[in-house]
Amino acid sequence: MAQVLRQLPWLNSLTSRNGDLAAAEAFDLNDSRSSSFELLEHGRSASKLAERVHYKDGSTIDWQREEAAERERKRAIHDQRGVRGAFAPIWDSTRIWLVIICTGIGIGIAGAWLDVLVRWLGDLREGRCVYGFFYNSVACCSGLDAGEVCQEWQTWSQYFHISSILGSSLLQSWIYIALSIALAASASVLVVTYAPYAFHTGIPEIKAIISGYVFDAFLGGWTLLIKAVGLALAVASGLSLGKEGPLVHVSCCMAYLFSKIFRLNPTESQKRKLLAAAASAGVSVAFGSPLGGVLFGLEELDTFAFSNESDVMWRGFVISVIAAVSLQYADPFGTSKLVLFQVSGVSDTWKGFELIPVCILAAMGGVIGSLLIRLNATVAVYRHNTSLREWPILEVVGFTAVTAAVSYLIIFCRVQSSELVANLFQECDSSRGDYHGLCNPTAIWRNIFLLVLSAFIKVLLTAWTFGMMIPAGIFLPTITIGACLGRAMGLLTQGLYRAYPDAWIFSACPPDPTVQCISPGFYAVVGASAMLGGVTRMTVSLVVIVFELTGALSHVLPIMVAVVGSKWVGDALGKEGIYSVWIAMRSYPWLPPSEFRDQGQTAASIMKSTDRLVVICDDKEADSGEGTVGALKEFVERHGYHGFPVVTKGNALVGFVIRDKVRAYLDLLSTEADDVSHGSWTFVAATARQNPEFLDLSSLLDEAVLQLRKEVPLQLVVDMFKKMNLRHVLFSHAGKLTGLVTKTDMVWLLTAHLPRTGALSEPHHRR
Amino acid sequence: MAQVLRQLPWLNSLTSRNGDLAAAEAFDLNDSRSSSFELLEHGRSASKLAERVHYKDGSTIDWQREEAAERERKRAIHDQRGVRGAFAPIWDSTRIWLVIICTGIGIGIAGAWLDVLVRWLGDLREGRCVYGFFYNSVACCSGLDAGEVCQEWQTWSQYFHISSILGSSLLQSWIYIALSIALAASASVLVVTYAPYAFHTGIPEIKAIISGYVFDAFLGGWTLLIKAVGLALAVASGLSLGKEGPLVHVSCCMAYLFSKIFRLNPTESQKRKLLAAAASAGVSVAFGSPLGGVLFGLEELDTFAFSNESDVMWRGFVISVIAAVSLQYADPFGTSKLVLFQVSGVSDTWKGFELIPVCILAAMGGVIGSLLIRLNATVAVYRHNTSLREWPILEVVGFTAVTAAVSYLIIFCRVQSSELVANLFQECDSSRGDYHGLCNPTAIWRNIFLLVLSAFIKVLLTAWTFGMMIPAGIFLPTITIGACLGRAMGLLTQGLYRAYPDAWIFSACPPDPTVQCISPGFYAVVGASAMLGGVTRMTVSLVVIVFELTGALSHVLPIMVAVVGSKWVGDALGKEGIYSVWIAMRSYPWLPPSEFRDQGQTAASIMKSTDRLVVICDDKEADSGEGTVGALKEFVERHGYHGFPVVTKGNALVGFVIRDKVRAYLDLLSTEADDVSHGSWTFVAATARQNPEFLDLSSLLDEAVLQLRKEVPLQLVVDMFKKMNLRHVLFSHAGKLTGLVTKTDMVWLLTAHLPRTGALSEPHHRR
Repeated sequence: MAQVLRQLPWLNSLTSRNGDLAAAEAFDLNDSRSSSFELLEHGRSASKLAERVHYKDGSTIDWQREEAAERERKRAIHDQRGVRGAFAPIWDSTRIWLVIICTGIGIGIAGAWLDVLVRWLGDLREGRCVYGFFYNSVACCSGLDAGEVCQEWQTWSQYFHISSILGSSLLQSWIYIALSIALAASASVLVVTYAPYAFHTGIPEIKAIISGYVFDAFLGGWTLLIKAVGLALAVASGLSLGKEGPLVHVSCCMAYLFSKIFRLNPTESQKRKLLAAAASAGVSVAFGSPLGGVLFGLEELDTFAFSNESDVMWRGFVISVIAAVSLQYADPFGTSKLVLFQVSGVSDTWKGFELIPVCILAAMGGVIGSLLIRLNATVAVYRHNTSLREWPILEVVGFTAVTAAVSYLIIFCRVQSSELVANLFQECDSSRGDYHGLCNPTAIWRNIFLLVLSAFIKVLLTAWTFGMMIPAGIFLPTITIGACLGRAMGLLTQGLYRAYPDAWIFSACPPDPTVQCISPGFYAVVGASAMLGGVTRMTVSLVVIVFELTGALSHVLPIMVAVVGSKWVGDALGKEGIYSVWIAMRSYPWLPPSEFRDQGQTAASIMKSTDRLVVICDDKEADSGEGTVGALKEFVERHGYHGFPVVTKGNALVGFVIRDKVRAYLDLLSTEADDVSHGSWTFVAATARQNPEFLDLSSLLDEAVLQLRKEVPLQLVVDMFKKMNLRHVLFSHAGKLTGLVTKTDMVWLLTAHLPRTGALSEPHHRR
Repeated sequence: MAQVLRQLPWLNSLTSRNGDLAAAEAFDLNDSRSSSFELLEHGRSASKLAERVHYKDGSTIDWQREEAAERERKRAIHDQRGVRGAFAPIWDSTRIWLVIICTGIGIGIAGAWLDVLVRWLGDLREGRCVYGFFYNSVACCSGLDAGEVCQEWQTWSQYFHISSILGSSLLQSWIYIALSIALAASASVLVVTYAPYAFHTGIPEIKAIISGYVFDAFLGGWTLLIKAVGLALAVASGLSLGKEGPLVHVSCCMAYLFSKIFRLNPTESQKRKLLAAAASAGVSVAFGSPLGGVLFGLEELDTFAFSNESDVMWRGFVISVIAAVSLQYADPFGTSKLVLFQVSGVSDTWKGFELIPVCILAAMGGVIGSLLIRLNATVAVYRHNTSLREWPILEVVGFTAVTAAVSYLIIFCRVQSSELVANLFQECDSSRGDYHGLCNPTAIWRNIFLLVLSAFIKVLLTAWTFGMMIPAGIFLPTITIGACLGRAMGLLTQGLYRAYPDAWIFSACPPDPTVQCISPGFYAVVGASAMLGGVTRMTVSLVVIVFELTGALSHVLPIMVAVVGSKWVGDALGKEGIYSVWIAMRSYPWLPPSEFRDQGQTAASIMKSTDRLVVICDDKEADSGEGTVGALKEFVERHGYHGFPVVTKGNALVGFVIRDKVRAYLDLLSTEADDVSHGSWTFVAATARQNPEFLDLSSLLDEAVLQLRKEVPLQLVVDMFKKMNLRHVLFSHAGKLTGLVTKTDMVWLLTAHLPRTGALSEPHHRR
């Protein structure tokens, strides 16, 4: 046997390199164990590639194979005859568009209901509407004339007729904290009990899934329901979290659900293209930003890789528009506008000297963004490695209590984040009233202090919250932190201008300090952009999202400067954004998009050479008859890899076989005939023709494998993996197998430098 | 000899397939003849790949080689010791950023001056300023109080004191036509005499260059100067053309010039990344749209392919911002706003029923866009194949006369296009006065007729103008056509509403027809977007450009619907946009981004098999001594291909050699020693070691060639060429060469279906 089936300690060599990753790899390769497939035919045929392999959660799809399967499926549909042949292609594409349309409408309505629910639950912590329990404060007070005071909305102390200041303060704070805890705890209980995958933002997983990771459980119906409901509870609880990332997850779950409802049964590559489009819809609804959604799909989800496939961009475009129209139609805010945080009163132009505070904000965004990423990663690893992990609900309850208590003390933390941001983006305007003293020109220093303090507290709270067992997005907290800091910078600049209106640097402004020359609201927008840039490291899509979020089109240049600057500074302090860091911590097989430059290495430096590989040796001349079918069966049972290279005499490469195909074929055979296991087998068609008594396995063999020479530059290999979405590459020289590189090797190569890579990889997440 | 150097009729087989393309290929491969290169070392080394090949115009670069050269260069800079080693990397990247900054500032200022020049020259056709010849009408009349009539700007008949109506009309029209002809003719003379590459838009060539085509003459200093000056003259002449595309060309020329000034001496791949960034700056200035510029670079110039290289996006971002800031600082319109065609007075929301006219406009955009593309291609081919080609200046003069005469009769054609568009985008507002009767509510049918007639005439004029020997962009004419049709549709809808205010379909509007419910200006924006979508087939970047151009952020959804719809309809009528059609007509080696799906073919269907290839046979066992150095030299002189596969006995693949390297090496040798030509040679290192008397050419050999098996699906090969930017792929099986596919084969495969592919390919354009 030893001559026929060589086995060498590839796995062991991996383990010594990185324990977690080796486990992941072993897992990755092992766990397609229960796969089944549909077609199994004897004989070689062009449709050989098209057999559908069902991947299990935790494995990585083979894009080449899946694309081939998709082409084959399309061809089969088009080749049908008669009436069926005429209608099948139409029905096929109609179903896809039905899924797109339904998902778009669904996520638009879900987003609208989420907003309504959050606003009502959030307001409930402060008081209630006299004439109806289910009205939020805005709906309760609508229909009043200008200047009229709203009597219908009562705080709890008013409602319970408690007039003493101490009593009312105590009651208000007590209800505030208790309701916050109740909301957060119920979200957490729902997540822990019914859908553990509904926690966190979901974007890292979606990114990994779209790039080829298989994780169907993450997209299930329960996850959809719990994530949507839990998200509303979590956001209303006042924790430092947002709804944006989770909405992307909800949108993807919805697309998956609809694809099941319409019996689309998509191939794995088709499914991923659908998910990429659905993710655009999520962003479109979360920010009211249809174009930002499309660009988010392109930039952040790396669907640049599909850019040749105009389908993906198309569907993203259409689904984003439908989702935004649905949201606008549902009109949760009663404004029939998409723009969430309309910037108003900001002067249409900006002055050259304002680039100085903008650059400072950009640098701050980069530094604090990196800090937040590192803090968050540290907390996540701490949680993972201590007994906190055993008590997720308790952690949520405790931390919500801390958050609520701290937030209640500081007015800018107590209000809902979205309300705070909307007001920070606004210019002070005598007609609109003062927002908690923000516009008081005599209290500049108090306001600056309060804003910076709020930002500081929010950083700490967010670093802990993002990763608890509760649905939580990072966008809104980041925007809040940035808007606080930006507004503080704006107030500072305004204060300086008012103090020294004649200074040379303010020469672009009139020397009269009572004139509105500096708009602190605009600084808040810039600060938010810079902080988002520092945390997510997005660029173009971020700028578009900020536009569509604020309508501040005339300030495109400062916003671009802020985003570019913060990414620059942030990249200098740590190369990747928060999503990439989480992906790396969880060891998902995903290649970060950041540039890789080799230092003159060739592929040989990363390649596993033949003597360390498990290969199937089909050398019938050397030991004819010794390699029996039984031995082959035992071999594939024993080695859990995704597949094996097949070689003949002298390591000459014949092709590559997928383990599951061989297993299923041999299983099929042994049910038909028992005595087959003592016969001989071959993968080489020529050998099979010469020896008709051999079991001909050549139909299982994939001859069209991608081969390189090991002398190619490492960068070329990296580029090929990234751009072609490869699963593995074989290396050969003069027809002889010299080695193999898998996606896992690439992931290791490209993510090893990130902080805490693999620190959170849990086998149960990959089942 | 026949045994050593096999030659088979590859070229002939190609010619039978497509004459023009075969010529192009022969040309493409032939014309690196006079290449030279810097390093030539004996001995095999890792830096072998890094030798700089200087490509001649008309060839295609080898991206893999150039990327390797770039890496090698970076490494060499970093490996320097001492003070030089510390500063060299800084100086290296500083120079790149200097080029970026200078190009950004340069194109911003150039764009501003262009605007000033065009406005003045254009106004000169109507009259002059009393107190200064060099003032345009706006500058001349500035400083007046509201309501005051401008006396300082006089028409020519006023200036020459001609009071009779007939006389003044004749004089005005005569001067208008004569000056138009003079301006266009001078532009044409400049182009024909000094810089023939300065004609047309330049975007097709830029696209081809960025994807790897070598065409340095297109980026020369003279081209820069003539294109900028000629563009101002051409635009001012009132021909149906815009400045947008040519500005992209000017920007790229500028970047190339600055890279020479700063002695950057970039590698070919680095140069292309720089050009991609510069192109963004061009768009940024042309539309006042920095973000649109970045996205244009990403979408239209296919720099998606570089998306992993964050450098490119970065530089695009920075250069766009710098260019826009420079433009804003130079402030040609005195508004210190970037927004060119500010939409004002448009209501912030739109109604559901308006989607019906929007969809009609989208369909019209797609149909008329396709029509315009086909008309334009037909005219271009007609011009190319008739004697018109010999008289380019005469053609310009004649056609300008026709344009001026026709335009003078119709008021909406007579005014400058940019002024017309700005007014079509505006809402009617009693405070701003009526623009040539456009706002007269009693003249709806007259206006609709005039607008549709103008659009029709513009389509015909544009189809002819785009391609004459004069710098000409297609964006502005397209916007004009679309805006006319859109405004007409808006007027129609408004008219219907006023006639039937109580109709069910208008239920979203108040039943009072005097209320402003429908905004015709908004329809003009939608029409322009739809027409742009139909002509260019851009998507995301187009929507962003329209936003930044108009500031109509609240109408993102209808604009997206229009762009998506027109692309859909357009793609159904003809797959590619106007730039792709021109690239295909000129047979540039460029792969269109549109999706390709094979019908089950494998690579074998397109591969040139070994028996049709010219290969170098290094079979020393078969005929030792017979293959002499002299014979090899003669062989490489005789065959003009870019390179040759090297095989040994039985077609076993050894590697690939570049023809120019062999030629240069052998030339070098023969200057050193005369008797070498009778000696034997080998590319195989092992053979060289065994036979020290053989000339060892193994250092010239590239062993790390990309190989595939011919059984791989055709789509995979197409994807590899597109995504990896390959020049050729070898096919092998069990170490034996089976065939070759080049980029030219791919171009043929992907563009053969386009109308009039290759119809304009002229050898002189590739010299």
